[in-house]
Amino acid sequence: MDIHTRRTIRKYSAQDIEPELLHRLLTDAGRTQTMGNLQLYSVVITRSPQGKAALAPAHFNQPMVTQAPVVLTICADFRRTSTWAECREAQPGYDNMLSFLNAATDALLYTQTFCTLAEAEGLGLCYLGTTLYQPEAIIDALELPRLTFPVATLTVGWPAEEPPLTDRLPAEAWLHDERYHCPTPADIDRFYSAKEALPENQHFVLENNKATLAQVFTDIRYTRRDNEAMSQGLMRALKRQGFLSAQ
Amino acid sequence: MDIHTRRTIRKYSAQDIEPELLHRLLTDAGRTQTMGNLQLYSVVITRSPQGKAALAPAHFNQPMVTQAPVVLTICADFRRTSTWAECREAQPGYDNMLSFLNAATDALLYTQTFCTLAEAEGLGLCYLGTTLYQPEAIIDALELPRLTFPVATLTVGWPAEEPPLTDRLPAEAWLHDERYHCPTPADIDRFYSAKEALPENQHFVLENNKATLAQVFTDIRYTRRDNEAMSQGLMRALKRQGFLSAQ
Repeated sequence: MDIHTRRTIRKYSAQDIEPELLHRLLTDAGRTQTMGNLQLYSVVITRSPQGKAALAPAHFNQPMVTQAPVVLTICADFRRTSTWAECREAQPGYDNMLSFLNAATDALLYTQTFCTLAEAEGLGLCYLGTTLYQPEAIIDALELPRLTFPVATLTVGWPAEEPPLTDRLPAEAWLHDERYHCPTPADIDRFYSAKEALPENQHFVLENNKATLAQVFTDIRYTRRDNEAMSQGLMRALKRQGFLSAQ
Repeated sequence: MDIHTRRTIRKYSAQDIEPELLHRLLTDAGRTQTMGNLQLYSVVITRSPQGKAALAPAHFNQPMVTQAPVVLTICADFRRTSTWAECREAQPGYDNMLSFLNAATDALLYTQTFCTLAEAEGLGLCYLGTTLYQPEAIIDALELPRLTFPVATLTVGWPAEEPPLTDRLPAEAWLHDERYHCPTPADIDRFYSAKEALPENQHFVLENNKATLAQVFTDIRYTRRDNEAMSQGLMRALKRQGFLSAQ
């Protein structure tokens, strides 16, 4: 893997992904560390045009969903483990917030190992942040049962683009020695000035008619209003999937 | 990376980790995909004996915490982004559950890329699942401010052991074509019989005086009572850190 050249790929060639290759990568990613070796995740593989069309609205119809040869929905899953317990004279107690977060953790670590392995094979990936925005639509489309929850979606295919690398903050912005040090205004200037000076970001501010780059995020891309409405949908979905029984 | 031989390492040699190597790996992991390129994570690096001693109780005094040369606590972090907004005439709205999960996702994907890079250098890692059990103790020890939350802890060092590989379920247990297929009792037998037949697991059942391996998990390792109590602590900590303002 060359971490320095990894980029998100949103355009894919018409070539399919061989089922054997995909199966091998999804199997190998299962070597990722997992809580109590329980493997608290599952993956729904969507290849059919109907399946992709059913998922697309949940992802705001981003074109990757219908254009990629494969869409993977990775789910936090305490269902299989609970069924195992019920088949073995054991009483599962995983219908709570901690268990959801434990399973979500397992699922996300698995997801990232899969990404690394797939990119090392030359595949291109896009991680869809929209998975948590309308989880109920995904739950319906994939018939996800109680004690499962979609936490990540990847579109996967052979790359048909080579976009430029995106910028990153200097590491001192996120590394803290011994204890957390709250950033001062001077720190913020040092961490963000290079990002704010990028031509594409200055263009982004202008085209959105905003005064600062941060306003593009707070007022347009990730607004309080959207976040609060979607948080309610998220809690409703967690309840529906049985993860809030104890609260 | 050879995914097939990765294992968790809990015993470390006395050799320190060179600060330059650790810094490079922590920086390189920042190439991981991230929501809106906001990098919603931070890492607190603990090297001092006092710092490790302060963290140890939160992790049930597992010996890795004080014996590893480095302990990393990876945090979901909307604090830095919110401070950036406040310094730039923007109104952040990230004190909600969706924003917590978005930041936790960023933090966990970053964590797993770091693990892959560190293991490729020959370092040994143990992922401590205890981070979510008593988050308030970690918040206190590391002085984590509002809109940050610890989601993962790694102990890191040069390996002083080579434990056997652990088993995994067959991939069909977690892979689903097109939609989720709930496992039948016959599926459960097929998925879990090899795990249940392992001598170490049979020993595990006997020494705990249980009838089945699943009972070891439900009655001893991850019980309903503990999960429900720790879920309450988790929700209390999320509220204290400001992520439940909107609920």
